[in-house]
Amino acid sequence: MGQAMPNVSEAERRVRASFARQQLMATLGAFIAAVRPGEVEIELPFSEALTQQHGFVHAGAVAAIADSACGYAALSLMPENAAVLTTEFKINLMAPAAGDRFRVCGRVVRPGRKLHVCLGEVFAERGDTRKQIALMTASMMVVETETGLRD
Amino acid sequence: MGQAMPNVSEAERRVRASFARQQLMATLGAFIAAVRPGEVEIELPFSEALTQQHGFVHAGAVAAIADSACGYAALSLMPENAAVLTTEFKINLMAPAAGDRFRVCGRVVRPGRKLHVCLGEVFAERGDTRKQIALMTASMMVVETETGLRD
Amino acid sequence: MGQAMPNVSEAERRVRASFARQQLMATLGAFIAAVRPGEVEIELPFSEALTQQHGFVHAGAVAAIADSACGYAALSLMPENAAVLTTEFKINLMAPAAGDRFRVCGRVVRPGRKLHVCLGEVFAERGDTRKQIALMTASMMVVETETGLRD
Amino acid sequence: MGQAMPNVSEAERRVRASFARQQLMATLGAFIAAVRPGEVEIELPFSEALTQQHGFVHAGAVAAIADSACGYAALSLMPENAAVLTTEFKINLMAPAAGDRFRVCGRVVRPGRKLHVCLGEVFAERGDTRKQIALMTASMMVVETETGLRD
Repeated sequence: MGQAMPNVSEAERRVRASFARQQLMATLGAFIAAVRPGEVEIELPFSEALTQQHGFVHAGAVAAIADSACGYAALSLMPENAAVLTTEFKINLMAPAAGDRFRVCGRVVRPGRKLHVCLGEVFAERGDTRKQIALMTASMMVVETETGLRD
Repeated sequence: MGQAMPNVSEAERRVRASFARQQLMATLGAFIAAVRPGEVEIELPFSEALTQQHGFVHAGAVAAIADSACGYAALSLMPENAAVLTTEFKINLMAPAAGDRFRVCGRVVRPGRKLHVCLGEVFAERGDTRKQIALMTASMMVVETETGLRD
Repeated sequence: MGQAMPNVSEAERRVRASFARQQLMATLGAFIAAVRPGEVEIELPFSEALTQQHGFVHAGAVAAIADSACGYAALSLMPENAAVLTTEFKINLMAPAAGDRFRVCGRVVRPGRKLHVCLGEVFAERGDTRKQIALMTASMMVVETETGLRD
Repeated sequence: MGQAMPNVSEAERRVRASFARQQLMATLGAFIAAVRPGEVEIELPFSEALTQQHGFVHAGAVAAIADSACGYAALSLMPENAAVLTTEFKINLMAPAAGDRFRVCGRVVRPGRKLHVCLGEVFAERGDTRKQIALMTASMMVVETETGLRD
């Protein structure tokens, strides 16, 4: 398209730098576990501070890490002069978020000129076992940075 | 249905007691603004700790308060021996979450025997102005408390 | 925005002309019941040809009329040189689609420069009674007609 | 669970018999291409009768076959005394539905006691090429047949 695409390590650097500015991720205790082109993994250790009324991690915290993983998976494929904004997501919560830590893998199913469609899968881990607890689909908008947004 | 339905003040007491056990709400700084039968309002003051990379409130925090408002709107209509669990939600983010505070009104569109369908509308407020920034639809499961879950 | 906005009757004419090209609507037997700025109603009489295995109208037919109502609600607010494309929708099916006829009201909740977010409510009617059976939220893209798409 | 589970060929027979009662599928021209445990494929040849205003297949027709594929994937794992009802689905439309025929693969991501969560992927095929055009997630309710519903 004649647009400068970042190389792999530059894409990873950009994703990690932008994630570091997401103060909610620090508030929740989440961190990036892996960045690949079109795919980002985020890990969230269990904490009492994240629970809902039954002691499971709140669906909002699960959705937050899944949204960030999908958004950064999208950003990893965007041209340098673009920023990313979530326009919508849906999450199916398939089992209570019980575990020692949670891992989400977000990936781009289809990159588009204006929107990237992403899929996020969330797993609860305890010892050596893991179980899928949630499934997200999301639309990520490619925002031209003349808007003033930077990523 | 022959099931004991809580009266209005008992429903409000139950919602507020369950909300007080949602530690994520305290972590985010959110509180209940109003409880009516089938309708719950939650308020969230802006905080740097909730932001995404552009300085807006993260979609995950917006989704968290909308999910709680929808879930408690559902719980307010459930029989005493039931607990509430979110099975899925979708959120459309219509404008960046910029404002001094955010208010979500969650309400039950249709109560069912097994699932309550809810609608959540989120507004950003600054001074005297307010603007809708998000729209959620959610499915809330009526969980019989023989499962051990309590609300 | 300096873009020519259609007047009300021109918007209605455009919506009706575009709807008339949707051959699926004729196949299902659906027609436009009302066009207002940002709001479109579609009616679908019951037919055996639309049923699922239990004799209710299939969720796909319900979704089809809700998608068209939301899409044309969006188109009614778009500048003349734009076409509309659905990027996503979600539908909650709240009760079986049983009735003599079905009516959906689609309306724009928030018009945007690139995306319009819409809400669709579907009702089943029998005699003088009506019951809400479904709730849709949808994202409608404003497509510039340099793409060759016309509406 | 002590419930009689159908064997594989019985599950396929049940899915095909129930699909044959979905008159909308015949109206659209769709047929079952494959049934495996937890997975169903449906094919839909292009027809002018299915189009929207730009000549692509209408999103409602795409959603209809994806909903049926997901629903029957779920039914293939349900006990004999259960019927299936869709409670909600969301579909992301990633590219216009242009092609000679469309194929959806629906599969169960997680079977539950009350709800099965399913994923549907829709492809457009032309000659030897195929392209993913849509992605659905859906919740399918396990309905006990004391309700009178049969599948």
